[in-house]
Amino acid sequence: MPAKTDHEARRRDVSAAVWRVVAEGGFGALTLRSVAGDLGASTGLVTHYFGSKQELLRHALELAEERTRALIPDLTDLRAALAAVLPTTPEATEISRVWVSSWDVALADPELHELERARYRRWRTRLRPLVIKAQAEGDLPPGDPSDLSTALAAFTHGLVVQALFDPTTYTPKRQLRLLDLHLSSLRHTSD
Amino acid sequence: MPAKTDHEARRRDVSAAVWRVVAEGGFGALTLRSVAGDLGASTGLVTHYFGSKQELLRHALELAEERTRALIPDLTDLRAALAAVLPTTPEATEISRVWVSSWDVALADPELHELERARYRRWRTRLRPLVIKAQAEGDLPPGDPSDLSTALAAFTHGLVVQALFDPTTYTPKRQLRLLDLHLSSLRHTSD
Repeated sequence: MPAKTDHEARRRDVSAAVWRVVAEGGFGALTLRSVAGDLGASTGLVTHYFGSKQELLRHALELAEERTRALIPDLTDLRAALAAVLPTTPEATEISRVWVSSWDVALADPELHELERARYRRWRTRLRPLVIKAQAEGDLPPGDPSDLSTALAAFTHGLVVQALFDPTTYTPKRQLRLLDLHLSSLRHTSD
Repeated sequence: MPAKTDHEARRRDVSAAVWRVVAEGGFGALTLRSVAGDLGASTGLVTHYFGSKQELLRHALELAEERTRALIPDLTDLRAALAAVLPTTPEATEISRVWVSSWDVALADPELHELERARYRRWRTRLRPLVIKAQAEGDLPPGDPSDLSTALAAFTHGLVVQALFDPTTYTPKRQLRLLDLHLSSLRHTSD
């Protein structure tokens, strides 16, 4: 057992183990015991940092949120923002897989459900100014930008799911081509 | 305990309990014990019909597949096929919720992963002739019908997820309006 002065470093180790467990096995695999197993430590050590299964779930979602923010740092371009969400790199694939697998627990738990609803609202709110800009440039059809933000968030997340289950069909290259085709089919509206 | 002649009726009871558990709590809640609890029976009774957790998961997915087929009986119209998938009724909401929550276990388990990949391929294959028909009628832009089937499956499933997490924002009426807006924004291509 580490000294108490090591608390922060040790917490980071436990946190890294939480991420490995959930990235490898999904939320169904995330338990105090599996995190302890990953660390080769006792469940007592894990509960020292995360007192309950619920705290563990919440922490895994916070990690996914942090990593997503790092993945999508700069939201100035709509196509780049949408492309960043797609599982076209190992890092983005890991994050996507964690989000998609979190929906099972998030649909079942009122607190996590509310967090996920809020997260989706934030994502649409971040897309909205990019949609308005694209509309002004004639790259998207006119209409309520909130509807278009919803539609584009829907298209990309639906493509994420298909790509996660069928990565040989939906290679990174094909995912990006599908995104470009989709955006261009919307663009032609004003021809 | 029922007589053995009652085997089929009893299996149906257990099967109905499997569905209730998963529709209520997702795949994270599905265990031999929770199904037994729902029935007020012993886990021994459940294992008589479903020998393992894996069989239980597979059975829940079969039930979702059956219910989905009943929900989308007639695939002659693209808009109707896509609308049927959206959680606009209690029955469709329950089925959507089970599919979305199944992705956690399906991403983690090679056998269930393969079943889900195959199911997505079947869905796109079913959409394809409707896409080709819509293209011929000028309702969808030209291009590879497989790409368009992927894009439409993506849009609807992505909308399903947002609607499940935010049903007050995405009422049934708004979901259908979003679908219609989306189809019409694609339709204008040939104007």
